[in-house]
Amino acid sequence: MAERTKYILDESEMPTRWYNIIADLPEPPPPPLHPATGEPVGPDDLAPLFPEALIAQEVTGERYVDIPEEVLDVYRLWRPSPLFRARRLERALDTPARIYYKYEGVSPVGSHKPNTAVPQAYYNAAEGIGKLTTETGAGQWGSALAFACATFGIECEIWQVRASYDQKPYRKIMMETYGATLHPSPSELTASGRAVLSAHPDSPGSLGIAISEAVEVAAQDPGARYALGSVLNHVLLHQTIIGEEAILQFEQAGDTPDVLVGCTGGGSNFGGLIFPFLREKLAGRISPVIRAVEPAACPSLTRGRYAYDFGDTAGLTPLLKMHTLGHDFIPDPIHAGGLRYHGMSPLLSHIYELGLIEATAVAQQECFAAGVRFARAEGIIPAPEPTHALAACIEEALRCKETGEEKVILTALCGHAHLDLPAYGAYLAGEMVDNELAEATLQESLAGLPVSAG
Amino acid sequence: MAERTKYILDESEMPTRWYNIIADLPEPPPPPLHPATGEPVGPDDLAPLFPEALIAQEVTGERYVDIPEEVLDVYRLWRPSPLFRARRLERALDTPARIYYKYEGVSPVGSHKPNTAVPQAYYNAAEGIGKLTTETGAGQWGSALAFACATFGIECEIWQVRASYDQKPYRKIMMETYGATLHPSPSELTASGRAVLSAHPDSPGSLGIAISEAVEVAAQDPGARYALGSVLNHVLLHQTIIGEEAILQFEQAGDTPDVLVGCTGGGSNFGGLIFPFLREKLAGRISPVIRAVEPAACPSLTRGRYAYDFGDTAGLTPLLKMHTLGHDFIPDPIHAGGLRYHGMSPLLSHIYELGLIEATAVAQQECFAAGVRFARAEGIIPAPEPTHALAACIEEALRCKETGEEKVILTALCGHAHLDLPAYGAYLAGEMVDNELAEATLQESLAGLPVSAG
Repeated sequence: MAERTKYILDESEMPTRWYNIIADLPEPPPPPLHPATGEPVGPDDLAPLFPEALIAQEVTGERYVDIPEEVLDVYRLWRPSPLFRARRLERALDTPARIYYKYEGVSPVGSHKPNTAVPQAYYNAAEGIGKLTTETGAGQWGSALAFACATFGIECEIWQVRASYDQKPYRKIMMETYGATLHPSPSELTASGRAVLSAHPDSPGSLGIAISEAVEVAAQDPGARYALGSVLNHVLLHQTIIGEEAILQFEQAGDTPDVLVGCTGGGSNFGGLIFPFLREKLAGRISPVIRAVEPAACPSLTRGRYAYDFGDTAGLTPLLKMHTLGHDFIPDPIHAGGLRYHGMSPLLSHIYELGLIEATAVAQQECFAAGVRFARAEGIIPAPEPTHALAACIEEALRCKETGEEKVILTALCGHAHLDLPAYGAYLAGEMVDNELAEATLQESLAGLPVSAG
Repeated sequence: MAERTKYILDESEMPTRWYNIIADLPEPPPPPLHPATGEPVGPDDLAPLFPEALIAQEVTGERYVDIPEEVLDVYRLWRPSPLFRARRLERALDTPARIYYKYEGVSPVGSHKPNTAVPQAYYNAAEGIGKLTTETGAGQWGSALAFACATFGIECEIWQVRASYDQKPYRKIMMETYGATLHPSPSELTASGRAVLSAHPDSPGSLGIAISEAVEVAAQDPGARYALGSVLNHVLLHQTIIGEEAILQFEQAGDTPDVLVGCTGGGSNFGGLIFPFLREKLAGRISPVIRAVEPAACPSLTRGRYAYDFGDTAGLTPLLKMHTLGHDFIPDPIHAGGLRYHGMSPLLSHIYELGLIEATAVAQQECFAAGVRFARAEGIIPAPEPTHALAACIEEALRCKETGEEKVILTALCGHAHLDLPAYGAYLAGEMVDNELAEATLQESLAGLPVSAG
């Protein structure tokens, strides 16, 4: 009988609830603070930006949140996603470890982002909101939200960082195919954008500026709201369907993970996979090591400070207690665009402080070497972001080869690289460099942290 | 209870045999002829280009061919592929028709091409061949063969049409990520290439020239063979796993197709889907209409001549009896690169002559309109090639809306558009034109058909 390659679930077996890890933590994460008062922000502060249902999910203490049938119905276009046993990679590494990967590249846009884009579009549409605004860098999040808005028939207006808008036309076209309206950021359409342009007419833009533009437009239009693709509690909540499915698939496989690894930028893919397993660990049913992997060029967990900081560069958001490199931090232009964020999800930061997860940082050339190795063994070319997890996974598997341990490793493969192939081109051409973050640069950036709270 | 979105098979349910339609046809297709003698070609004529196992499959009369376990093991990386019920598209069209699509974009390279690339690489490797050569245009076939060769540890050398090599770097990088060696064609590496370059130093290349280069290198190297991605009997044989799976999935759905539509370039995706259904039709168990859809700019079935012609421009291949526009025909540069072939699979051409299938041609703007409509309803952005099938599918569904018929339509969605997004960009920007084939151009091309046979 053939060895199994993948574990699939019928759509009737798809989980129907998201899991809220906050209900099972020994203490809740510190609340977001209003920058002017230093007091915790309330629902009224957030109402101009988010629909009521999402504000409620952001602060809920309930252990489970039912997934609306309308959202499940869209999830079924690609979910449940497969869990693969990487037998070919195991053979290529000659390791006794058993390697599994949960693959989110089967979504229409090729990443895990639609898991939260779809419910966000749904809740907004259900509350009569006709338009969502957002920012995007390389375009992974923007294309997911464009797809979700098309699905529920609402408008989607996206500010894309000018440098990506000009250099990466594929994702721009993808967003427009779904019917979204795109602007390069900084734009003349907002006060934030105009302020930047008047000082720097040739500004290439940044995620921080694009956030300011999208937030400004949503706040001023009663019929519009803003959507964020990572960092916040409700975003990580929506992503837990990844881990809930994986738990069912491990039951199919009759196996139990000893090590979980995932890449972390804002934290949504990692949190989505690991929270359900962390629930099982906190309950004493399993005891895996859980490891976050971040880029050496943007190492918020391993080298950032745990402090209150703004979520955006302009300082328009509430203060979030998180591991941060400072909201003025501009990461080197590494190819894993989805990991270039100065902060880390407050919830994941809190869990890290509680000692429930580990973290490590990897330089990008090692990541792409792992990506190429994976592609030639398993076929799928991983997006630049999950190559970070694969580098750590391969390191662990090779350690097992030395020790003879038959560890079970689960890694999050959050997307494919079809729209990121130029990064592989740069790696194969020997044109990629590793930009370690200099300590002086980090200290300079951390000196700009707000002192009002923390 | 929720309505089903997709029908999936466990990998243990995956078909283990390919189906050979020739065994069930009322008469066999005319044989390929040697251009010098006018006699049918024998195995010895083909031995410099193909391994014995594939030559045997090319001429076999057996109804079923077992799929080697080593091939099944690679198929499991993405197969069985899903059959979707397009409920959202049905609602968007307000049609009583039930629309299903068999989706091959789940393969690592995003198309159906690995279904034959994998067995071709396997049989070559099993016979000790260390290298495969091939041509590619936009790169769909080349990336599939590069993936397959990486899987079996053999070399892959690809001649890519110069215009695509320069303009479409994404697929080039994909092939190199899998470890393939790429050359723009025409190249200085072959006599065929040098001949073209000496006459036209700036030649943008063509599929015909690239075939000549790949064939020339394989024929001169005893350790190398050549691989073709469509047209030939063994290629269509390998693709029948698509239709065999779909039949099992329709049993799951408790439904029966009334209309099958697929796009045709060389014919492998279409043949792969429809042959198993045609077997059932010939046996009197079902009676669907089967419709091939081709581009109006390259209409080999609907406007070509059924005659013996060369498979390549330079005239290096055997003569094939097929619907052809003439081997000198240069189709307009339409965006569905996979459909820009002057001929049609001899087997499909024969089946068309027998009256077992219909054919229609569609202009590209209507196709992309269908692609956008599909993407906004179902999420997946279809590759330019299958938008042809979707245009015909939508036309049929809208006809059902008028008549009230609840027809069951099955369409082949052979790939996604992640690497073809610039085509959508051109369509959305209003920069796409419909180039109908002028009758005078066609007649001029047909005048160049070889007269030695047929």
